Amino acid sequence: MKVAYLGPIGSYSYEAARRFFGKEREKLIACETIDDVFETIEENRAEFGVVPVENSIEGSVSTTLDYLLKSQVYIVKEIVLKVEHYLCAREEKEQILTIASHPQAFSQCHDYLRKNFKQAKLIQVSSTSYAARMCAEGEVDAAICSSFAARQNNLKILAGPINHDNNYTRFFIISKNANFEKGEKNKTSIIFSTYDKPGSLYKILAIFNLYDLNLTKIESRLAKTNLGEYVFFVDIDGFVDEEDVSDALKVVQRKSTFFKLLGSYSVVCPDK
Amino acid sequence: MKVAYLGPIGSYSYEAARRFFGKEREKLIACETIDDVFETIEENRAEFGVVPVENSIEGSVSTTLDYLLKSQVYIVKEIVLKVEHYLCAREEKEQILTIASHPQAFSQCHDYLRKNFKQAKLIQVSSTSYAARMCAEGEVDAAICSSFAARQNNLKILAGPINHDNNYTRFFIISKNANFEKGEKNKTSIIFSTYDKPGSLYKILAIFNLYDLNLTKIESRLAKTNLGEYVFFVDIDGFVDEEDVSDALKVVQRKSTFFKLLGSYSVVCPDK
Repeated sequence: MKVAYLGPIGSYSYEAARRFFGKEREKLIACETIDDVFETIEENRAEFGVVPVENSIEGSVSTTLDYLLKSQVYIVKEIVLKVEHYLCAREEKEQILTIASHPQAFSQCHDYLRKNFKQAKLIQVSSTSYAARMCAEGEVDAAICSSFAARQNNLKILAGPINHDNNYTRFFIISKNANFEKGEKNKTSIIFSTYDKPGSLYKILAIFNLYDLNLTKIESRLAKTNLGEYVFFVDIDGFVDEEDVSDALKVVQRKSTFFKLLGSYSVVCPDK
Repeated sequence: MKVAYLGPIGSYSYEAARRFFGKEREKLIACETIDDVFETIEENRAEFGVVPVENSIEGSVSTTLDYLLKSQVYIVKEIVLKVEHYLCAREEKEQILTIASHPQAFSQCHDYLRKNFKQAKLIQVSSTSYAARMCAEGEVDAAICSSFAARQNNLKILAGPINHDNNYTRFFIISKNANFEKGEKNKTSIIFSTYDKPGSLYKILAIFNLYDLNLTKIESRLAKTNLGEYVFFVDIDGFVDEEDVSDALKVVQRKSTFFKLLGSYSVVCPDK
């Protein structure tokens, strides 16, 4: 079985894939972009994919959401990981003059950096795992990255976790097969459209209210096809085999201009 | 008057600042991160700030939204710019072996790259403006960036626009002073919280429905302070001086557990 993930090795998506699919590395396929992960699944080069869905370090929700909207893949699992950033280097150093990381990681470690490395030059790169590799190759004195990216690149952890926010990142495991498996905590994700007029979203939410369903997420996006038409991404507590969920979705489908079931899946939080 | 923006020179935020505040460069202050822009405003080192709020290339909505939630600054204007990516180089080249850009820009130019540069090595960097600078300094053969980043770095445009999606990016102009000015098209942004129980969001949306207000955006986020409590970011069509808007906001404030007016502002779309 092959699993495509948003690479490189040491990325948060890699860690999510490793945690869920085990440690045999040969079956993990690193992809350069979120698009590549989706295409690898669509073209049957892998059975599963791991993509970030709420992760300020690696990718925006929107890229993954846009692909879920247009492609024929389903969400089959959600993995929630804790984000912890560490200051890492090849060896203990007297002076750190250059530090590489993702801009968002710099933001999340702002207080620590201001207190301890006010004079250091911050080099912004596209991912924390890439920063770790740069550090390993001697291009910078230190990197801010995850502990697994540090391990992957044989870096020493000098300090950490150094981030101030208590952040979690969410990942979806995606597949072409809608084999939905129920677990302990379950969610169901849908996309629907309504016309752009006052009260149309309210009418749809009345349906969820009627069936006592709790929304754990709602996000509106302008549909790219028709200006003025909205697409709503909604996550519901519950699994599709529950009567309230399946009945509510039937009504929502009938009352919306567009409807797509993205998946029904269990949520795994290995860090909690 | 000083204006802080998410740099470097040539970034989309720079272009938004330049388009809105004019071309005198001395008053524009480049900031390294979105955090820095907010702090520059809070510490009175600039009167205005320009930050991306919906822009897959430069920053996630979430960083800006998180800051709006916790800081004492207001939205005073929204600027919408069209995103167009170009293939740029120092000179016309026979062979392009390395191309630098932001991962999201590579995604958006995926079809073009696959057709024309299947063999080229793609170097992922933290921003398209940084990619342009790398190209100018001879570190890569070409960069995918905006036309103004190309100009800024004396690069020739070889092809473009090469992106397939018709994307717009949104920027907020922020200020410590709540001097809300009405324009032709106006929006009002608020944040509110409800308890995590079925129907609580629905009850709040009933208020907007009652006053015939159109929501142009709704986004839920888990409040970082209390797990299980939600924060909703909502944009409404209309200005705070309109009776329906001000009356509805009064009721929403009374019926929510937390409420903050982020701003009431006009929307400017220079590209349309």
